[in-house]
Amino acid sequence: MATADRVLVVGGGPAGLEAARGIADLGTPVLLVEAKDALGGTPWESYATLTPHLAPTRELMAEVKGAVEGHPLIDVRTTTRVVASEGVAGNFQVTLEHDGTRVVEAAGAVVVATGFQHFDPGRETQMYGYYEYDDVITLVDAERMMQAGQFVRPSNGAPPRSVAFIQCVGSRDRRIGNQYCSKVCCGIASKQSIEVKHLVPDAKVFIFYIDMRMYGFWEDQLYWKAQEEHKVNYIRGIVTEVIKKGDQLLIKGEDTTMGRPVEVLMDLVVLSVGMEPSAGTLEMARIFQIPREPHGFLATVGEPLDTVSTPVPGVFVAGAAAGPKDLEDTVSMGGAAAMRAVSLLRRLVAQSA
Amino acid sequence: MATADRVLVVGGGPAGLEAARGIADLGTPVLLVEAKDALGGTPWESYATLTPHLAPTRELMAEVKGAVEGHPLIDVRTTTRVVASEGVAGNFQVTLEHDGTRVVEAAGAVVVATGFQHFDPGRETQMYGYYEYDDVITLVDAERMMQAGQFVRPSNGAPPRSVAFIQCVGSRDRRIGNQYCSKVCCGIASKQSIEVKHLVPDAKVFIFYIDMRMYGFWEDQLYWKAQEEHKVNYIRGIVTEVIKKGDQLLIKGEDTTMGRPVEVLMDLVVLSVGMEPSAGTLEMARIFQIPREPHGFLATVGEPLDTVSTPVPGVFVAGAAAGPKDLEDTVSMGGAAAMRAVSLLRRLVAQSA
Repeated sequence: MATADRVLVVGGGPAGLEAARGIADLGTPVLLVEAKDALGGTPWESYATLTPHLAPTRELMAEVKGAVEGHPLIDVRTTTRVVASEGVAGNFQVTLEHDGTRVVEAAGAVVVATGFQHFDPGRETQMYGYYEYDDVITLVDAERMMQAGQFVRPSNGAPPRSVAFIQCVGSRDRRIGNQYCSKVCCGIASKQSIEVKHLVPDAKVFIFYIDMRMYGFWEDQLYWKAQEEHKVNYIRGIVTEVIKKGDQLLIKGEDTTMGRPVEVLMDLVVLSVGMEPSAGTLEMARIFQIPREPHGFLATVGEPLDTVSTPVPGVFVAGAAAGPKDLEDTVSMGGAAAMRAVSLLRRLVAQSA
Repeated sequence: MATADRVLVVGGGPAGLEAARGIADLGTPVLLVEAKDALGGTPWESYATLTPHLAPTRELMAEVKGAVEGHPLIDVRTTTRVVASEGVAGNFQVTLEHDGTRVVEAAGAVVVATGFQHFDPGRETQMYGYYEYDDVITLVDAERMMQAGQFVRPSNGAPPRSVAFIQCVGSRDRRIGNQYCSKVCCGIASKQSIEVKHLVPDAKVFIFYIDMRMYGFWEDQLYWKAQEEHKVNYIRGIVTEVIKKGDQLLIKGEDTTMGRPVEVLMDLVVLSVGMEPSAGTLEMARIFQIPREPHGFLATVGEPLDTVSTPVPGVFVAGAAAGPKDLEDTVSMGGAAAMRAVSLLRRLVAQSA
């Protein structure tokens, strides 16, 4: 059977957008499938600004989103799901569903860019009270408030006088089954702490952390910037409990630098929730029979020298579907997956000629 | 002037190899220039094994190295340097020097993959005694010993009974001008600590760190594996001094978890030296007029949504020439740069048609 000269990209977030644009810019047609009704993925939907420069997400992403939406070689299908796949590299027959109608489309290669979902802190509700107390929120809730240009206590709509970020919620935690570090939460919390100070200059802001994983340039772009320019306080410690006290939240735990218990009252608590494979990622694992690595994300082969090839020939992965990734990882993988997918189609065509 | 249908890749390490193979697999000819007499870069030359799976470097890199060396579209020039460049995107005229002879070659786009060099601990010699004491070595010296299948004290050739890794040597240090974190040293030290225990099972191994930046899957692949399976001890602290005492080394500093001074005798000290731009990277910045970002590495534009485009049209960067990168970053960037370079040539050809 002839090689289908088209690549299916599943997922329209930063990884899928970059992969789709890259493939199309290389001259190969793309079928881009997104389950939601708009492209952009989690950042477009929920993040006010992006690390490391705190630039507005929608301004920054508009270029790639527009390039994809306007590209003559990219067929964008929103509110569409991949529900089945048959065939092999060079000729996958993929069933798509849109509005209850199913169609089968051919693709020579597939890039899975279905990303992650945030850890649901309900699974730790007894510790941190996310579903019990209005003023316990997640990083994502904070971004949504900041998208609207405000940062207030949900309980009363007033600016918080004190804010505590609790790191590693749903990460580095064997009890809940997520042993890995989610990589980006230290950077995002530090970014948000700066934004809190922009929006509520008088607020006291604390970040409770186990290790501060501000790798590379984040060291001074975010970590020292937060401390020196914005007077954010980093406290190395383990928070064991958040309980309601009056109209505030009492944080109990241990300051591991000082080696003593800590109890502080806060107006607002932000849980730095980690990454888990999204439902779409698990679904693509099943449909394309992609093995999952020990943490549950899509497996890749050839680590560390190949970040995008899955064990299934012709199926590539980009972004956080393969594990916790920052935006730089994600777009680099999108570009690398584009290169690999187009190269594969070239090779298959050459072999069959 | 017609677009030159060829990409110059400068540097034959993991980033340059991946970029070269990617470009050639997309059907575009590559001119790959490497200053040394063999491809493979720093890992091939000096690293016994690679993070995160401790696989032998040369086994792992043989595939991409062989693919590049045998590729009909890749013209490999070793012991060759780029010494000048004129022209613009689509038609760079690049002067190469080999054995004292200069030739001018045309390239439509350029990928700079000239990497990093390790921080020279001589710049901190008063603190850690690298040039004074035989048994103070760097991560690189350790890798070279491990390549030869051994791990001994240089002073007497005997296996060390105790080994201390000191993290952040030349990183996160304003005094020496390197404010950034070098990203990979926590992972490499943890990897090496496991290898020390393989080679010298009775050795006691300590890692003195400020923050342990074992992001993502390194958390359990390296950090917990070192502690639980190999009994490596992680001590959060600042080492202020290494001095000779008898035939051992006295490490003085502060254990910041316990909040008390620490003084321990060690047989061998490994300095976890960070990354700085290599001489070749600085040279390429000059020749191609690529601005340097505030830490001295090659600047990129469009962060975080583009990791490989420099401010100079037609000139891309991959790997640690753009800042501290792990191997995954590096190969993803290599693939992404391949995609961008070939896309650019396609666009230029289309525009001129």
